[in-house]
Amino acid sequence: MDLIKAIADDLSAIREKRPLVHSITNFVVMNETANATLCIGALPIMSHAVEEVEEMVKLAGALVLNIGTLTPDWVDAMSLAGKHANEHNIPVVLDPVGAGATTLRTNSSKRLLSEVQVSIVRGNAGEVATLAGIAADVRGVEHIDAAEPPEKIAREFARIYGCTVAITGQVDVISDGIRTALITNGHAMLSTVVGTGCMSNVIVGAFAAVESDPFIAATGGLTTFGIAGQIAAHEAGNRPGTFHTVLYDTLYGLSPQDIQSLARIDLTE
Amino acid sequence: MDLIKAIADDLSAIREKRPLVHSITNFVVMNETANATLCIGALPIMSHAVEEVEEMVKLAGALVLNIGTLTPDWVDAMSLAGKHANEHNIPVVLDPVGAGATTLRTNSSKRLLSEVQVSIVRGNAGEVATLAGIAADVRGVEHIDAAEPPEKIAREFARIYGCTVAITGQVDVISDGIRTALITNGHAMLSTVVGTGCMSNVIVGAFAAVESDPFIAATGGLTTFGIAGQIAAHEAGNRPGTFHTVLYDTLYGLSPQDIQSLARIDLTE
Amino acid sequence: MDLIKAIADDLSAIREKRPLVHSITNFVVMNETANATLCIGALPIMSHAVEEVEEMVKLAGALVLNIGTLTPDWVDAMSLAGKHANEHNIPVVLDPVGAGATTLRTNSSKRLLSEVQVSIVRGNAGEVATLAGIAADVRGVEHIDAAEPPEKIAREFARIYGCTVAITGQVDVISDGIRTALITNGHAMLSTVVGTGCMSNVIVGAFAAVESDPFIAATGGLTTFGIAGQIAAHEAGNRPGTFHTVLYDTLYGLSPQDIQSLARIDLTE
Repeated sequence: MDLIKAIADDLSAIREKRPLVHSITNFVVMNETANATLCIGALPIMSHAVEEVEEMVKLAGALVLNIGTLTPDWVDAMSLAGKHANEHNIPVVLDPVGAGATTLRTNSSKRLLSEVQVSIVRGNAGEVATLAGIAADVRGVEHIDAAEPPEKIAREFARIYGCTVAITGQVDVISDGIRTALITNGHAMLSTVVGTGCMSNVIVGAFAAVESDPFIAATGGLTTFGIAGQIAAHEAGNRPGTFHTVLYDTLYGLSPQDIQSLARIDLTE
Repeated sequence: MDLIKAIADDLSAIREKRPLVHSITNFVVMNETANATLCIGALPIMSHAVEEVEEMVKLAGALVLNIGTLTPDWVDAMSLAGKHANEHNIPVVLDPVGAGATTLRTNSSKRLLSEVQVSIVRGNAGEVATLAGIAADVRGVEHIDAAEPPEKIAREFARIYGCTVAITGQVDVISDGIRTALITNGHAMLSTVVGTGCMSNVIVGAFAAVESDPFIAATGGLTTFGIAGQIAAHEAGNRPGTFHTVLYDTLYGLSPQDIQSLARIDLTE
Repeated sequence: MDLIKAIADDLSAIREKRPLVHSITNFVVMNETANATLCIGALPIMSHAVEEVEEMVKLAGALVLNIGTLTPDWVDAMSLAGKHANEHNIPVVLDPVGAGATTLRTNSSKRLLSEVQVSIVRGNAGEVATLAGIAADVRGVEHIDAAEPPEKIAREFARIYGCTVAITGQVDVISDGIRTALITNGHAMLSTVVGTGCMSNVIVGAFAAVESDPFIAATGGLTTFGIAGQIAAHEAGNRPGTFHTVLYDTLYGLSPQDIQSLARIDLTE
């Protein structure tokens, strides 16, 4: 398949070009997402001061925004960094963590989507449904249900906001409003470690830094991360701490050939 | 023993109900406590913005406050979240990290204890002694000594503040002023990893979310965590990094039967 | 060699005296540096509130400042803590993360170096070169190149600022302007885990807490950390997650005899 070949080539390009991925993210996962960035072959930078985000984001291949432990001043920094990324044609990935759970999270996500041209939104079904105006049952940031199937939510969201969206879950659904991909890689153990969703964001960011088509970048990042999850779970078994450790080992050792042989993507137009 | 049976049942209830545990905690252990929350079977939420803590805490089964890297604005958020938790009858767990080491820590702990009806305080002997007005030798947040035996400090504290208190150390002491429990589970390796005390807070929080008696919740959380520490140390040996990883594996795999067969609790009235 | 004997003795002294190392550092590595502090035998304290840093730093054997995720208010706290450390003759270690990458980072580093008498600066070649006024190519905080060899940059920096400086890289270079040490311990796997540079800072801080000569403290901390990296890499192989875990195990188990038999230091005057 051409898509899988493109993803494998993008992984090679990340290892060769070593793009900087600039994250403004939550306190819970900063170390974990920085290590995931490094393991996939990119270079992490964490910086949130309004006094420097303009200078810093210009050096980056992608900007990843995540509102997991947001306060209004951090959202200001995210908006500012996003605008400068737009000026320099640097792709922006947004994770609207907990949109639908609180007014602050819903409104901050909408604010960022209106002030910044986001390339890729990555969230769960409830968060994405909320932002697309579809009814959803949201509880905190971990447990979510939505009234519509994720393919429909994704297509609707992509058309409203004019960007690529990825809804992760048992099956990952990516849509740019025209193309839709269903990824059946991944493993249930990924939900036993905090921040795997956030790690997938930076992997998507690394792909976006070397891949001009956001739909391929999002599909590539999530397929790659899902494959790493499968391999790590095979080695670690039912042990979340060990799985967490082995996940980094696996991301670091993952080859373009692994992508070619293990990717499970259904593509519809 | 009835108490141990109640603890084993509470562990089953956590896994079945998956309560949200809302933490406002320090930067050093956010990831570790979130993962401990998830491994015991609850769902972690970290949120500290004064703009959303009211909405967020209402979704939670328990609120855990920890002043480890406090600044006054974070204490404001803790107080606000605590007051809303009280309104909704959500139990509040407080860790007064470093009370006695600096004026800010002592005063912030006292402020939270006066503004919020705390169900369970978890600390070391020096912190609890300081807040109970008993002489103690405090150095930073790790190394502590107190003039009185922990049972006496615990009973005194519980009577002054009208809540359950847990003093952790070689022996964990829990008191609500009437009942006192001594737990001899646990392992010296727990002191070789940063944040194991903070992890025990969220485990206690998960128990408090399903158990209406704070004394049983505190005893249950600390017994469970101590047993996990023993099992993990048996597997990891004298290696703190490996122990840290295996501790999550063990918390995740721990069964109510493990509690029944391994709990070592002495109860006095 | 006398230097290596002194380092081995300092490691014994850390384990015996258990000094408090007070860190004001970045959000990405707080847990990792606290665990490294604990594993080497010292006690970590993380505290950044301007309301308490004076009280806290007085308890410490060393203060470690790191601007990795700086904002101006954090730099204020670092400066305040540094001044109080100076008053109490407590050694200060500074890591000017990303100096040269943004104006805020360069200026904040210069501010701290002018307001605080720093004992030891630890950085990469580009950061140190920037602050010494030598041309350097800086990209973010991870990838760096400088126009001059590190020995020359280090000597120049040490003479300008009147302190010891350590430039870490494939070879670690330490200079106080008169003596220069080249350490060829260490391992390439150290660059596959985020925050190993930050961990080396706190190890240097622990040495500085028991060793009055900053040049020996810096050389000792980096030699010790490099040896731990070698041993851990030998056990973990090409797996960054496993290496990270084993690095803590190794730091904890490292003996003065390991230093004596494995240290590789070239000393020139």
